[in-house]
Amino acid sequence: MKQYKRPDEGLGFLMQYENVAWYEDGAVRILDRRIYPIRTEFVTCRRHEEVAKAIADMVTQSGGPYTAASMAMVLACFESEGMANDERVTYLEKASYTLSHARPTTSAKMGVYTGRVLEAAKKAMDAGAQGPEVTLAARAQALEDLDKRYAKSVPIGRLIAEQIPDGGSILTQCWAELDIAMVLRAIREQNKDVKVFCAETRPYFQGARLTASCAVEMGFDVTVISDNMPAYTMKTKGIDLFTSAADVTTCDGYIVNKVGTFQIALACRYYGVPYIAAGNPNPAHPSIDSVTIEERDPELTLHAMDIKLTKDGVKGYYPAFDITPPEYVTAIATDKGLFKPADLHTYFDL
Amino acid sequence: MKQYKRPDEGLGFLMQYENVAWYEDGAVRILDRRIYPIRTEFVTCRRHEEVAKAIADMVTQSGGPYTAASMAMVLACFESEGMANDERVTYLEKASYTLSHARPTTSAKMGVYTGRVLEAAKKAMDAGAQGPEVTLAARAQALEDLDKRYAKSVPIGRLIAEQIPDGGSILTQCWAELDIAMVLRAIREQNKDVKVFCAETRPYFQGARLTASCAVEMGFDVTVISDNMPAYTMKTKGIDLFTSAADVTTCDGYIVNKVGTFQIALACRYYGVPYIAAGNPNPAHPSIDSVTIEERDPELTLHAMDIKLTKDGVKGYYPAFDITPPEYVTAIATDKGLFKPADLHTYFDL
Repeated sequence: MKQYKRPDEGLGFLMQYENVAWYEDGAVRILDRRIYPIRTEFVTCRRHEEVAKAIADMVTQSGGPYTAASMAMVLACFESEGMANDERVTYLEKASYTLSHARPTTSAKMGVYTGRVLEAAKKAMDAGAQGPEVTLAARAQALEDLDKRYAKSVPIGRLIAEQIPDGGSILTQCWAELDIAMVLRAIREQNKDVKVFCAETRPYFQGARLTASCAVEMGFDVTVISDNMPAYTMKTKGIDLFTSAADVTTCDGYIVNKVGTFQIALACRYYGVPYIAAGNPNPAHPSIDSVTIEERDPELTLHAMDIKLTKDGVKGYYPAFDITPPEYVTAIATDKGLFKPADLHTYFDL
Repeated sequence: MKQYKRPDEGLGFLMQYENVAWYEDGAVRILDRRIYPIRTEFVTCRRHEEVAKAIADMVTQSGGPYTAASMAMVLACFESEGMANDERVTYLEKASYTLSHARPTTSAKMGVYTGRVLEAAKKAMDAGAQGPEVTLAARAQALEDLDKRYAKSVPIGRLIAEQIPDGGSILTQCWAELDIAMVLRAIREQNKDVKVFCAETRPYFQGARLTASCAVEMGFDVTVISDNMPAYTMKTKGIDLFTSAADVTTCDGYIVNKVGTFQIALACRYYGVPYIAAGNPNPAHPSIDSVTIEERDPELTLHAMDIKLTKDGVKGYYPAFDITPPEYVTAIATDKGLFKPADLHTYFDL
């Protein structure tokens, strides 16, 4: 059926396009990552505003919202099929704003994706397309963007996989989504036998629920450890590489990633385990000084899968990220190759 | 009513004698620490074998089994009130063996406690006591041992509390039971205002459920963090001291404690936070070489309060303890004062 090799091939259930967020027949269906794999449930949104709410409510996270927002723009085109062109453009511009601002810290990047679908719809209308034809054009753009986003991760995955010895073990943190899925696929391509250890990543258990699921879906030998075990696991299980994504890579080589990453990097230093983070430097962050660490609802830390663990009066604290300084990062994998953190500023010269 | 100042005064609900394990009217009642404070439930044992099973099943843990086993020996005396002395001694000896072997790694220390009650019962019989009189003598011994065990922790608590500045913050790991409760009481005695941060301690959440409960019961400002947050919390919240118990303190200054302790010690080194462990050196462990790290059921790591987090096929790993080498320990608090790890071998000369 498909005329191209889909970049999600072989990535397992979790990273298949249809299981991230998917537009079909007037609805966007999103896998509920808050509860997977305890339950495999999809949230079906029949209005683009419902997709914005699902993103705000963390139904999908990591890279998922980029896909969901693109697909929701297609839904907005479907919703506006009966409108005149002028009215329809206004409607879609408003939808683009609503969707890209579903979560404040990522609105700029989200706006890139919703903006592309918006532009494709406008272009189709300018060329005389009407009603469902515009929706089809929007859908083609959303799929193209999805392909591109996946394809961009392929070389980064290969770069990191090359650093892992055959017969070795890697340790992951949180859910690096495309980055870790592409590393795992590249390990398969390189015919290596690699064991995967996943730190569970409290309070949300992304490591246990998402990364471990992705790896086991892809046929790997996967072991989940709790967040107090990475150092001891390095000592006893011989971890060869620690790898993570980066919510922000600053141009001066700092890695801002899920809280706990720096603790693992400290253990890496002690045990001589290399740490490679995946993520292009962000020109909006020339140095670490411009980064604000988001704090989330402290109540979440007091719960485990909706069970309150603590007595009344006990407080929580939930810093979402921490900061690993350049001297604790072995290398940063980017779309222009591997960089030592101290050389990362040269990325923009290439 | 009581003629003496009970050493459990002011320690909060969790450390009150009656809420650890208590013999009364032919039964031993044990607080179920597996589920507290989500539910406050007691397991009532009407046979000493039921107490052994409760200990094996982790109804009570940390120092709790020592109290439970002593109280179960009183129960065994009650059970044997109708027996002739010879038969009764045999019955009690068997009970002492059963109870002290409820968990393999602590059987020697457990045997000390059950042995004392056994000896008190024998002594009473030798002096002509019969039936319930022997049970009363056994109960008096169990209470005396309980008093002594609590009283021994008092100076250790004071020593550690002296190291904490007024207005400061401490970080705890797991549930150090008497040791941390006595530190908290000593902080109160010293009229200090101290904030308590508890690492939740997966997979069993002892920090969130037990340590935080104890501290909030004693009126402290308590914050629970997950096990991936200690380093970041040191950076942002200004932790002044990290303190833990020690499952084993070796004579050469290694601390064997709940897995995750070493990761926190690594972060302490980075941020310049002192780490003081509580626990006399164990002459059975002249060096770290004699210590075996217990591995528990790996399935526990895949669960949170009985909810399975992972897909089928994902493995778990549950090393119960880790090892912090002497150079990462600032001091060890013992009943003979504070020692630098390198000087700990002099403990036995004092």
